Amino acid sequence: MENIFTDEYFMKKALQEAEMAFEKGEIPVGAVIVVADKVIARTHNLTELLNDVTAHAEMQAITAAANFLGGKYLKDCTLYVTLEPCQMCAGALYWSQITKIVFGASDTHRGYEKMGTQLHPKTTVVRGVLAEEAADLMKRFFVEKRK
Amino acid sequence: MENIFTDEYFMKKALQEAEMAFEKGEIPVGAVIVVADKVIARTHNLTELLNDVTAHAEMQAITAAANFLGGKYLKDCTLYVTLEPCQMCAGALYWSQITKIVFGASDTHRGYEKMGTQLHPKTTVVRGVLAEEAADLMKRFFVEKRK
Repeated sequence: MENIFTDEYFMKKALQEAEMAFEKGEIPVGAVIVVADKVIARTHNLTELLNDVTAHAEMQAITAAANFLGGKYLKDCTLYVTLEPCQMCAGALYWSQITKIVFGASDTHRGYEKMGTQLHPKTTVVRGVLAEEAADLMKRFFVEKRK
Repeated sequence: MENIFTDEYFMKKALQEAEMAFEKGEIPVGAVIVVADKVIARTHNLTELLNDVTAHAEMQAITAAANFLGGKYLKDCTLYVTLEPCQMCAGALYWSQITKIVFGASDTHRGYEKMGTQLHPKTTVVRGVLAEEAADLMKRFFVEKRK
């Protein structure tokens, strides 16, 4: 039997979270953290609503997942996030020693790869999963905002 | 009359916070955020107690200051922190557009300067204020821990 728990499967859940951010007028970024094919954290960007630059989807997901696991290291966890993490989020992921990061659209302006932020040596990265869907949502957001 | 509100004055308050972290068994880093010579946030590292890698002193201070100000940008604010910020905290400070950062001891291993993390172009940095006091507290912590 085919395994339904693909990277696309979980990225779709992250995209649902991004859509929830969109509906709240937040830059539409969503994230989920998965361990053993189980979602243990699902979050979306809340920087405007909380008036807090640290309230990126990934930061909340790291806190929620650690809370669920009862430990601060995200061993055997995968983060799915619709947009490439920024310096702050990549720096937090470094500390978390997360096993795997899967992101959708690249952020060529403020993404951690361009910025040169270092991840933990234990962490592997998969890029571009449902990237078009994530990028489309971002574009739609900024078009709406300019209206 | 001499202005008592020097960088040393506020760094002493950050050191008091670092001592509170020390007493809780946390890596002793403390921070305060100041606007117009008034402390609007005082925090210390709580990563162990909260089981959360994102609970660095600076991250909490950014959230608390934004909450106090009712806006997410830390305009005209100065952060005093006993240890050079890491990638995550420098990344958060980038988003906050904070006016000034004053740090004590350098972190030659995981500090943002070695890591190449970018701050906001509006931000100025002062290094080495009461650095010895901050470094001594860190050394004392790791000696205790090894016992």
